[in-house]
Amino acid sequence: MFLIRSSIPSKTLSLRWFSSATTPHVLRPGDVLRQSRLFTEEDVIQYSKVSHDSNPLHTDPAAARDVGFEGPLVHGMLVASLFPRIISSHFPGAVYVSQSLNFKFPVYIGDHITGEVQATYLRENKNRYLVKFKTKCLKNGELLVIEGEAMAMLPTLIFEQEQCKEH
Amino acid sequence: MFLIRSSIPSKTLSLRWFSSATTPHVLRPGDVLRQSRLFTEEDVIQYSKVSHDSNPLHTDPAAARDVGFEGPLVHGMLVASLFPRIISSHFPGAVYVSQSLNFKFPVYIGDHITGEVQATYLRENKNRYLVKFKTKCLKNGELLVIEGEAMAMLPTLIFEQEQCKEH
Repeated sequence: MFLIRSSIPSKTLSLRWFSSATTPHVLRPGDVLRQSRLFTEEDVIQYSKVSHDSNPLHTDPAAARDVGFEGPLVHGMLVASLFPRIISSHFPGAVYVSQSLNFKFPVYIGDHITGEVQATYLRENKNRYLVKFKTKCLKNGELLVIEGEAMAMLPTLIFEQEQCKEH
Repeated sequence: MFLIRSSIPSKTLSLRWFSSATTPHVLRPGDVLRQSRLFTEEDVIQYSKVSHDSNPLHTDPAAARDVGFEGPLVHGMLVASLFPRIISSHFPGAVYVSQSLNFKFPVYIGDHITGEVQATYLRENKNRYLVKFKTKCLKNGELLVIEGEAMAMLPTLIFEQEQCKEH
């Protein structure tokens, strides 16, 4: 979990390590928040249970291969849950207003996915903040698997940013 | 889980009961598929675990009331999981292409939610079918809590429809 200003090349950031210390920051247009996750077979089983979604593409390797996939897929909506998780972990009490999702490539069990939300628009409204984000998920740091936009109402624009230290 | 043709007033359908017998039907523009669900506190706990979403609005009544809600909210993305569930339970092997979601009113633990997808556009593509759906969730059968659109690639347009019997 970290933040970059859009003016900082991400290559620079990939050379950094992060300590556990945090400092408060104010969200500005262009800021990017990221979190990564590896989706396991157990995640897919648990999500199938709680969503009551029994699509065999998620549990049956033969059914997935019949449709041309390499193996069972992680549910798109489970992968997309990274977006509200990233927003609410930085801004507890955030209220989700909208989300659009384009599922561009499959996510398989075992894939390492990075979710990324970039603030593009902010407006104050009665001591709360309506913020629009570009949202995307990257597989192995490069392949765009989900893209879309989210809107959320935040209780504050101040959040804790994990500090960067040069390695 | 049932289907109506859009020309049939839903009031008529609310007077019907459904047997477990099914007959095959071909999906046409205007067709509506529905499924209902009551979201429990256990659902919210399990979804929080699998999504790693720790927003206190879902688990802490005081935090939810601070923001003006009556109590803890069901995660919007969990409620919206009704849409792919409805599509894939009628069309196993369906591949989700896109989904837009507007969260209009809160869904609380214990709320009875009906998810509804209405086919609006169909196109054949290499023996598969790209179908666009209007998607909505209604609370207690009337309040529109989520609306949007979905696109899915279906392996067939034929599905099993539970038969209606007049009560």
